[in-house]
Amino acid sequence: MADSEFDLINRYFTGIGRGSQVLRAIGDDTAALQIPDGAVLQVSTDTSLPGVHFLADTLPEDIAYRAVAVAASDLAAVGATPTAMLLSLTLPEADALWLSSVSQGLLVAAEEFQMPLVGGDTTRGSLSLAVTVFGYTQGLGVTRTGAQVGDRVCVSGVLGEARAGLALLSGEPALNDLGDDAIDHLTVRYTRPKPRLALGQMLLGRATAAIDLSDGLLGDAEHIATASRVQLWIDVERLPLSPACVAGWGLQQAREWGAVGGDDYELLFCLPKSEELPPGCTEIGEVREGRGVMTSLPITGGSYDHFAE
Amino acid sequence: MADSEFDLINRYFTGIGRGSQVLRAIGDDTAALQIPDGAVLQVSTDTSLPGVHFLADTLPEDIAYRAVAVAASDLAAVGATPTAMLLSLTLPEADALWLSSVSQGLLVAAEEFQMPLVGGDTTRGSLSLAVTVFGYTQGLGVTRTGAQVGDRVCVSGVLGEARAGLALLSGEPALNDLGDDAIDHLTVRYTRPKPRLALGQMLLGRATAAIDLSDGLLGDAEHIATASRVQLWIDVERLPLSPACVAGWGLQQAREWGAVGGDDYELLFCLPKSEELPPGCTEIGEVREGRGVMTSLPITGGSYDHFAE
Repeated sequence: MADSEFDLINRYFTGIGRGSQVLRAIGDDTAALQIPDGAVLQVSTDTSLPGVHFLADTLPEDIAYRAVAVAASDLAAVGATPTAMLLSLTLPEADALWLSSVSQGLLVAAEEFQMPLVGGDTTRGSLSLAVTVFGYTQGLGVTRTGAQVGDRVCVSGVLGEARAGLALLSGEPALNDLGDDAIDHLTVRYTRPKPRLALGQMLLGRATAAIDLSDGLLGDAEHIATASRVQLWIDVERLPLSPACVAGWGLQQAREWGAVGGDDYELLFCLPKSEELPPGCTEIGEVREGRGVMTSLPITGGSYDHFAE
Repeated sequence: MADSEFDLINRYFTGIGRGSQVLRAIGDDTAALQIPDGAVLQVSTDTSLPGVHFLADTLPEDIAYRAVAVAASDLAAVGATPTAMLLSLTLPEADALWLSSVSQGLLVAAEEFQMPLVGGDTTRGSLSLAVTVFGYTQGLGVTRTGAQVGDRVCVSGVLGEARAGLALLSGEPALNDLGDDAIDHLTVRYTRPKPRLALGQMLLGRATAAIDLSDGLLGDAEHIATASRVQLWIDVERLPLSPACVAGWGLQQAREWGAVGGDDYELLFCLPKSEELPPGCTEIGEVREGRGVMTSLPITGGSYDHFAE
């Protein structure tokens, strides 16, 4: 009896990461996990498709790493401690070299985020990676719904670099010469986003609302505004822009990418005035009465919506 | 700012099922679930693709129901109580009628299996439904690894009907006239499989090993044999065959479909002689020393493997 699907899973998808909470991983009908007593299970799923979530010519290792990082970023947004992940992989053919590279990307991400691969599904079809992540929090975690008028609006890291990296990877060079190190830095920001897991956990019980930046700052700020029934006022001149972006494309483009570029996977959060700003974060605005997002300067472009016409 | 993706999710994928263990459903970065203290979390994911897991012209409601049922069947196999599910839906276009029908199929399944939809992801691409299910057990659940020499090999329900339904749906009529009721019965067995959740829970602490029948009895029996390092001897003449299959296609075809047809989503399990056979189940063989699966008669055909040449 042909068993190649199972061989494939055994060869490339077992032993990816380890975790003390994994009671049973790949090889049975389900995976079994231990969630600490009293903790809340946090779950999320994200699908990555070529031409939508990654460029078709991306290295398989980067495709896999990015698919996992993007999914883990949702755990970061609520402050969850990662436990494990599942992968639904659909692929046109079982190519050993490709699978080996995917496996390597999964392994790097699984170890970096301490989120072992405990199961999944492999089917033949158009390339697609759906990663489901599990984590836990004590309490409900930081949601989008708690922003209070008067809170500071804050963001982690530097914005717009992933969008610049995407431009470079798409064959659109910078206007001014950047140098190889800056080019590498920007492209890696797109291919290997770093979910802010430690920051998310640090914000538990401190931030009133949080979201991870996938669609772009302004679009994601809109989600907090809507869920919390407040207005988020953003001082565009305070956005933590990328020196490399400013050098390569000028201030206006760097600012647009910082505001609406997407794919940064930094955290946007609302912090009461009484709470200290965590290291590496920037205050960029405040929560006001009203609805929606207001910016200090007009910004062109818009957030990404898969089904917008 | 265009928000059609979010509108779409809000319109068609919220309010699908309810559950006392859902602390937060669709609308934030993660869904939050309460797993009973001391219980083990059981997770599994299954991808459904047109032309592989369902016929391209299947009603969207049936596509959705089937995708959920197939995923829930993995919970049945380990004896887990369902808690919730996530859906990663990839679809070529956001068609309201299609989505409304999918939503209806999800709702019926969510209520029937008491497994509310708590989140997911919607992307544009080739049609694909990846359903991730969560459940829990006290203890590790029934795995594939515990079969003991001397156990009875048992199966629930009737085998081969889903395969007959697939033949009918594929435009291959029965050899002998079946009548509309039998045709309906067989096709529904394929489009709306019933995961054996109650039986799975009943087998906890009684069965030594179990698996759900997705690939076909003999192929799935092989998984138990391998995992438990035993031989499963199957008396082919004792398979619970479908009267409708025998009437429509003759004994030999009915037996082949029962042995290797797949898609039945019944449970195959190993039961110590001291345990009573649950109602609606049939003893079809025994666990012996050795490896692999042995049958009392030769069977043609083979289990389904997506990547076999």
